[in-house]
Amino acid sequence: MTTRWLTPEEQRAWRAYIAASLLLEDAIDRQLQQEAGMPHLYYTILANLSDAPDRRLRMTDLAERTKITRSRLTYAVTRLEKDGSVRREGCRSDKRGSTAVLTEEGMAVLERTAPGHVETVRASLFDRLTPEQVTQLEEICTGITRGLEGDDPQTTPDDVPWRRRSSSPCA
Amino acid sequence: MTTRWLTPEEQRAWRAYIAASLLLEDAIDRQLQQEAGMPHLYYTILANLSDAPDRRLRMTDLAERTKITRSRLTYAVTRLEKDGSVRREGCRSDKRGSTAVLTEEGMAVLERTAPGHVETVRASLFDRLTPEQVTQLEEICTGITRGLEGDDPQTTPDDVPWRRRSSSPCA
Repeated sequence: MTTRWLTPEEQRAWRAYIAASLLLEDAIDRQLQQEAGMPHLYYTILANLSDAPDRRLRMTDLAERTKITRSRLTYAVTRLEKDGSVRREGCRSDKRGSTAVLTEEGMAVLERTAPGHVETVRASLFDRLTPEQVTQLEEICTGITRGLEGDDPQTTPDDVPWRRRSSSPCA
Repeated sequence: MTTRWLTPEEQRAWRAYIAASLLLEDAIDRQLQQEAGMPHLYYTILANLSDAPDRRLRMTDLAERTKITRSRLTYAVTRLEKDGSVRREGCRSDKRGSTAVLTEEGMAVLERTAPGHVETVRASLFDRLTPEQVTQLEEICTGITRGLEGDDPQTTPDDVPWRRRSSSPCA
């Protein structure tokens, strides 16, 4: 098969994307590490739990929402549990199959950290974009996500991160 | 100071961006790990060296091009050196101050790996975008990068990744 090399426009867009995504993640991670002692992923886990009914989610659902593998989630939640921000319930024989619950302490961490985090997201990203570009960014990213997750939820590919290592008895 | 919370449009765009960037990095990393046994960052380092005159760059310049800290780059280049893909020259007393050179073996790895990598980038990203969206993505990402690097190269902030830990005697 002949390789479909990138066009000059695509190459420019790809390099710009790699640079922006690395710098953005660096800025956000650094602010959260400095102010809350946690990386961006951990903040995202707490934020997802705070949005869920009763502030609780099954680990498999939490992995899908955060778009990571269950083993990576298990590692992160174990640390958040030690910090007292998250409590785990049910299915003790398999940590991936259990439910993660945001504690009062975790909610307090989130409330204390959110203003600084949002300021960083705004200063790093949204202050640089026009309202049209905000819409464009959402459309572009939604298209990418649909492509990688499969357009039809019934046919989500097995190789999305949260479906890997699906040997859990309670998942 | 009152927190400037995100608008609903910004929130949707931000969530879409986080999901897309995690899934995209996962897809690209996985393909490169499977076919070349290296993560995306290592591929990017080799690709940057192959684009440079004489396929060589000072470590400080390579860190700036790849948008990472010099300590992270040093770690990666040490592994690439062990694999035989990169050779390091000069300033042996401080690895960060030295020059990285792409070897013939590294060039061969890149040539062997590029077609599969480009196919993945195309299938994951560009096949989902219209030509207008490719232009939009480049403009959005260039704006973000300028914001985080400073618009004026003379006033690049000290907190960009490649300027941190600037105690190198040869940098």
